[in-house]
Amino acid sequence: MKTRDKLNPLGIWFVGARGSIATMTTVCAHLIAESIIEPVGMLTERHPYTTLPFCALNALRFGGCDIRSEPLTRTLDTFIADQILPSHLYTYAAAAVSETEAAIDFVPDLVGCIRTEELYNVSGEVLLDGLRSALAKFKASIGGNPVIVVNLASTEPIIPGEQQLASFESWEQLDTFIRQSNARLPWGFLYACAALLEDCSYINFTPNIGAEIPGLEDLALRRQLPHVGKDGKTGETLLKTALAPIFEARALRVRSWVGYNILGNSDGQSLTNPAARDAKTRSKDQQIRNILRDSPDVCTKVGIDFVSSLGDWKTAWDFVHFEGILGTKMSLQLLWQGADTILAAPLVLDLIRLVEFAWRRGETGALRHLGAFFKSPIGCTNHDFWFQMRELQEHLGIEERIGE
Amino acid sequence: MKTRDKLNPLGIWFVGARGSIATMTTVCAHLIAESIIEPVGMLTERHPYTTLPFCALNALRFGGCDIRSEPLTRTLDTFIADQILPSHLYTYAAAAVSETEAAIDFVPDLVGCIRTEELYNVSGEVLLDGLRSALAKFKASIGGNPVIVVNLASTEPIIPGEQQLASFESWEQLDTFIRQSNARLPWGFLYACAALLEDCSYINFTPNIGAEIPGLEDLALRRQLPHVGKDGKTGETLLKTALAPIFEARALRVRSWVGYNILGNSDGQSLTNPAARDAKTRSKDQQIRNILRDSPDVCTKVGIDFVSSLGDWKTAWDFVHFEGILGTKMSLQLLWQGADTILAAPLVLDLIRLVEFAWRRGETGALRHLGAFFKSPIGCTNHDFWFQMRELQEHLGIEERIGE
Amino acid sequence: MKTRDKLNPLGIWFVGARGSIATMTTVCAHLIAESIIEPVGMLTERHPYTTLPFCALNALRFGGCDIRSEPLTRTLDTFIADQILPSHLYTYAAAAVSETEAAIDFVPDLVGCIRTEELYNVSGEVLLDGLRSALAKFKASIGGNPVIVVNLASTEPIIPGEQQLASFESWEQLDTFIRQSNARLPWGFLYACAALLEDCSYINFTPNIGAEIPGLEDLALRRQLPHVGKDGKTGETLLKTALAPIFEARALRVRSWVGYNILGNSDGQSLTNPAARDAKTRSKDQQIRNILRDSPDVCTKVGIDFVSSLGDWKTAWDFVHFEGILGTKMSLQLLWQGADTILAAPLVLDLIRLVEFAWRRGETGALRHLGAFFKSPIGCTNHDFWFQMRELQEHLGIEERIGE
Amino acid sequence: MKTRDKLNPLGIWFVGARGSIATMTTVCAHLIAESIIEPVGMLTERHPYTTLPFCALNALRFGGCDIRSEPLTRTLDTFIADQILPSHLYTYAAAAVSETEAAIDFVPDLVGCIRTEELYNVSGEVLLDGLRSALAKFKASIGGNPVIVVNLASTEPIIPGEQQLASFESWEQLDTFIRQSNARLPWGFLYACAALLEDCSYINFTPNIGAEIPGLEDLALRRQLPHVGKDGKTGETLLKTALAPIFEARALRVRSWVGYNILGNSDGQSLTNPAARDAKTRSKDQQIRNILRDSPDVCTKVGIDFVSSLGDWKTAWDFVHFEGILGTKMSLQLLWQGADTILAAPLVLDLIRLVEFAWRRGETGALRHLGAFFKSPIGCTNHDFWFQMRELQEHLGIEERIGE
Repeated sequence: MKTRDKLNPLGIWFVGARGSIATMTTVCAHLIAESIIEPVGMLTERHPYTTLPFCALNALRFGGCDIRSEPLTRTLDTFIADQILPSHLYTYAAAAVSETEAAIDFVPDLVGCIRTEELYNVSGEVLLDGLRSALAKFKASIGGNPVIVVNLASTEPIIPGEQQLASFESWEQLDTFIRQSNARLPWGFLYACAALLEDCSYINFTPNIGAEIPGLEDLALRRQLPHVGKDGKTGETLLKTALAPIFEARALRVRSWVGYNILGNSDGQSLTNPAARDAKTRSKDQQIRNILRDSPDVCTKVGIDFVSSLGDWKTAWDFVHFEGILGTKMSLQLLWQGADTILAAPLVLDLIRLVEFAWRRGETGALRHLGAFFKSPIGCTNHDFWFQMRELQEHLGIEERIGE
Repeated sequence: MKTRDKLNPLGIWFVGARGSIATMTTVCAHLIAESIIEPVGMLTERHPYTTLPFCALNALRFGGCDIRSEPLTRTLDTFIADQILPSHLYTYAAAAVSETEAAIDFVPDLVGCIRTEELYNVSGEVLLDGLRSALAKFKASIGGNPVIVVNLASTEPIIPGEQQLASFESWEQLDTFIRQSNARLPWGFLYACAALLEDCSYINFTPNIGAEIPGLEDLALRRQLPHVGKDGKTGETLLKTALAPIFEARALRVRSWVGYNILGNSDGQSLTNPAARDAKTRSKDQQIRNILRDSPDVCTKVGIDFVSSLGDWKTAWDFVHFEGILGTKMSLQLLWQGADTILAAPLVLDLIRLVEFAWRRGETGALRHLGAFFKSPIGCTNHDFWFQMRELQEHLGIEERIGE
Repeated sequence: MKTRDKLNPLGIWFVGARGSIATMTTVCAHLIAESIIEPVGMLTERHPYTTLPFCALNALRFGGCDIRSEPLTRTLDTFIADQILPSHLYTYAAAAVSETEAAIDFVPDLVGCIRTEELYNVSGEVLLDGLRSALAKFKASIGGNPVIVVNLASTEPIIPGEQQLASFESWEQLDTFIRQSNARLPWGFLYACAALLEDCSYINFTPNIGAEIPGLEDLALRRQLPHVGKDGKTGETLLKTALAPIFEARALRVRSWVGYNILGNSDGQSLTNPAARDAKTRSKDQQIRNILRDSPDVCTKVGIDFVSSLGDWKTAWDFVHFEGILGTKMSLQLLWQGADTILAAPLVLDLIRLVEFAWRRGETGALRHLGAFFKSPIGCTNHDFWFQMRELQEHLGIEERIGE
Repeated sequence: MKTRDKLNPLGIWFVGARGSIATMTTVCAHLIAESIIEPVGMLTERHPYTTLPFCALNALRFGGCDIRSEPLTRTLDTFIADQILPSHLYTYAAAAVSETEAAIDFVPDLVGCIRTEELYNVSGEVLLDGLRSALAKFKASIGGNPVIVVNLASTEPIIPGEQQLASFESWEQLDTFIRQSNARLPWGFLYACAALLEDCSYINFTPNIGAEIPGLEDLALRRQLPHVGKDGKTGETLLKTALAPIFEARALRVRSWVGYNILGNSDGQSLTNPAARDAKTRSKDQQIRNILRDSPDVCTKVGIDFVSSLGDWKTAWDFVHFEGILGTKMSLQLLWQGADTILAAPLVLDLIRLVEFAWRRGETGALRHLGAFFKSPIGCTNHDFWFQMRELQEHLGIEERIGE
């Protein structure tokens, strides 16, 4: 199998293309491809992953849609203010995104409107058609080459009736429902529909509803498309799913695991909406219970608050209260200070490569071997990070530590 | 293979038998065997390990030696003061240790003396003979049944010339050296010699020199005895070796990993001797560099200080400074508050069972599959805790998470 | 002025007399009076406060009311479980509370009922009469000696219409309102009314409404009674009000100060009621803004969650984000692990002495010099702990550090 | 009294003029004077201090000496790398320092040499003469206007025999000693001598020996010069001296207070010399014991380690173990992440103004009212930060919180 390179471009269509993660991903792809920066944080740039014929970074052509219309350089300015883009790289970054800004087809009117309460009443069918034609136009602009849709939008509030979508077993049933229902379909659902209907693979990096429902899995299988998600495991949850197995491995009993997150970027701002916050904490508060099977009564809590002075810097405190022999209570506390965008961008690039590679190998439907990348991995019932990493390596047929 | 039980007792000869860990191990073995407490912290009491015919806890007969002569109830008093033994269990604990106190043969004169600088000049040969006869007497007292020697002594200062012991390839050479040299042999070395010469398996839970040197490995193989060590991985180092792989798994670059430990028990007090502290920090400061192969320039530091008000409560701060894409520096801080004795006792019981099981299966020499239990595992070059846990499970032929 | 001692007893009537703080206060008063323990945590046992003729601890006679009827030894059992009462003191503590248990007049029926939603409709007047007669009976039982009522009840939900009580300028108006309104008067208000009407001084250690409203201040002045409150400043808020002045003193700009508290005692359990939690966080979230006048835009948040495994151990994380010159953002994080009951009991004893002393000196109405003891000090607009401590010393005419 | 302004310049002669703090102080003075940045962190720019006629920032003329010869813009580059100078201010900062770079008289040969072991043998008298002539030249260059010497050099190792200098009661005795001794006089001592002999006020911001010895106090009084020091209280020690009084104010017993500091700037690098580290920790480890008079047995420890990845970011963990009533042990942990240079520069500007103001008011010798600025304040035996702040305000005749 040959590596895909710039002669065989791969389109990347970001939902939320003007947001921090999409912009940072674009910048990093260019700067790594041009050897200006090192690919820190990317698995697929490291041995033994590099033995596989992943897509070259210079093959990527970025586009997408967003509800905002400020130029991408505005996003770069927030990177400078948040001290996640060193000032001496600003010019390179601006060059990288200007190329993208020009090449992509924004659909502000369409997507912008669905945020407004009144326009929720535009039927899902109409919105879906708009998304599909925007996507089709992008695909045509890169010569009909394959496209991966990557959802990087903000967390959506859970819409009443959202569960109903999961009740349809086949795409026909879902399709009929979309045409008959008048409104209020969750956007994440529409992005996933549009992607699959336009023959694009789909990566859902958000906690929003996506291709995990049976009707869309059915569609993905028929179209022979892979998809993966959901909710990128970048920081505190990564830590939790890698740390909780220690207690299990040592047969210690965890009594409580409570975590509080504060952050100040636009992702955090969207969480000031209580319904959105609820959706997010739900995605973040299931892993511990799943992993700690020896601690069935563990009390877990997850809090998220918006603290604007932090900018992109997610800060989190986790307090783990556990018991050893004789009932002795001990504690572990974690303090995490990470820049979400910096952690997410390399994961997005890895996922793009891994999904494209799966697609070339003919893998379809939910990609179960990519659970290590997600907080709520589709089709993967084990949240233990080390189990997930082994699944990834076994699926790819590589072994990181041979001979040791 | 049958489980060993009280009809076929197993002798446990503790070096440091009046210390916290030995006393706590004795208490826990009794209280678990009598179903007074739950076996929290023990792997071998949990599925799927329970499918293997490990030795029953009521088969254990405890004895040992110590340089102190206070009754074991004095140690129980410090447990109460340190709040690691609930007061309602005191009576049970006192019963458990009184049984032990009566059954064991203390050798205070012999072992007590070697601590004194002047008596260092007693020849190693003489000391070794004393240890051997004490051990032989204990073995006879339990009917000649097998005995495991478990070294739980305090950290020893590194003695000049200690390395020379590692230069002898065969037991004969070592033996000659012992007879010819006049003095200053490290005690840990003598314990290991005595154990193997008296046909006992050997567990070295300390950072002191033990059976890892070629001459003693040779002796163990000839006597068909297993041994394992060294330096039990109970708390902060456990965390480090389980957490460092996260950075490796996400290809993040660790720039610095510094840790400071404070503790107030007698183990901590012995570390106020700078040479002993040096020996301990050396054992604690190798894992990070071993695991983080993507971060070759990582700056590591380990500090240990004695803070008497903490009693048995080891408190540790770890500061991890790491870099993501674009060189952005982020941090993770860990705050650990654990009772060392509480964490160690179940591990000692697990090790006793695992070593006895290995011995019955005819395994000899250094047991490489038990690396997960040690800071400086003999014969195991990989400090990654998850790698070590897989080695354990593969060796035992069990799989914790089948079907997931 | 003479010290009050056991020949002139002082009655202490606790609201919440079976709770942790009341029980611990009773235990400590006895054990200090009998020289069994040292008076750690008490200002009034230390030079130069000891130069003032405060009431002797052996003068105190404890009583009170509670909605619970379990014996006080049950509360002692939770102290043992929470490791805040050393087991060797249990017998002394049981003796101390048995004496109290016998001496006090419980009113479970009356107070117990007002917790029940249906019985809210019992008119405030009826409840008030019940409280007054219980209090009168207690006063008679100690020979008509003076009594201080100390409210140690759990946090109450804020009742709609509570603010109306603050609109009455005189006691006559309040009195008329109580007689005419049929129900739903906050309990804290009724406790304060009962105390003042029965000629008792009043200490409000809770965040609940009390004697701070104009109508009750009027009553206190007429009856020539002192009162003080509200919401004891025991742990995290103490820290905040002592630390925030540093930033002010160094002219640093605080951008955000967010704190999360977790606790597991019954005080914490009552906070699982969202309305009660709201009342509590309101009391905890005003100090920072008051102190940091150079940081007008500071973002503050306070979270409280119930985590049962913690028992009496309040654990808190505070994250302070501040700015220096050139806009450089820095941070200070605090991790607090304190036993609320242990911290509160000595403060209650100090307050009892300070209020009794004020009463003997003829001070009436809200005692403004005791602001250092409260989160929401009545009549004290400055939350700076150091300012409050100076006010205390100036009022008492003592200077802690003369000559330095 | 009139404010000193640019028509009556004030010379500032930095020892360590190419270091971080001197450079940052120069940049901040210019940028504040030109209203480009706000004077965050400066007391003297805030009411009520602004009611006093302090020297205007545009009156300052900077010069000094250093053992390094790299241009000041090299130091600015480290500020950018350490993210303490926002990139958009670089041009302004470069302008500010270029002015300084030109105006000052560097003495690299003289000062550079004394670092070298061999040249230690140059007699102190010769070195002192060199320093004096450099200083005289600077003074002449600003028209003979007054000059303040500010020592911002790195921590010096303690030299054997350093204590002898403190044994001379008068300047004559010291002077004789200098002329007779051949070598090995501590540099800090020589800077202080040179300053006072050239009629300059002296600020010692380092932990090195300075004007605190009797012989130099004598010289300062005769020359009618004020001086102040030593070791600027910028971060962790500030916190400690502001926090420790809480425990005293609540009569809680502190059992242990241990702190570990890690930092990566050149100040940190100089501490890799064990003798220098010893000098620094000695200066940092006296305050707690001084403040906590109720806790005479408190165990204190201070560790400092160089961790290069941190750059200017001092990170510190403090663990405070304290006891309440019944001997219950509780803890407070502090995690501090501050940029030392950012914290120090405004203090240096405040000190310059306060010392110049004292000089104009005719105050001579050690300025005891400036203890709040120093870890080891000369002539101030009380380390309590709040006591020190009151002394400052009382001395200046201002009251920050009148009417509250």
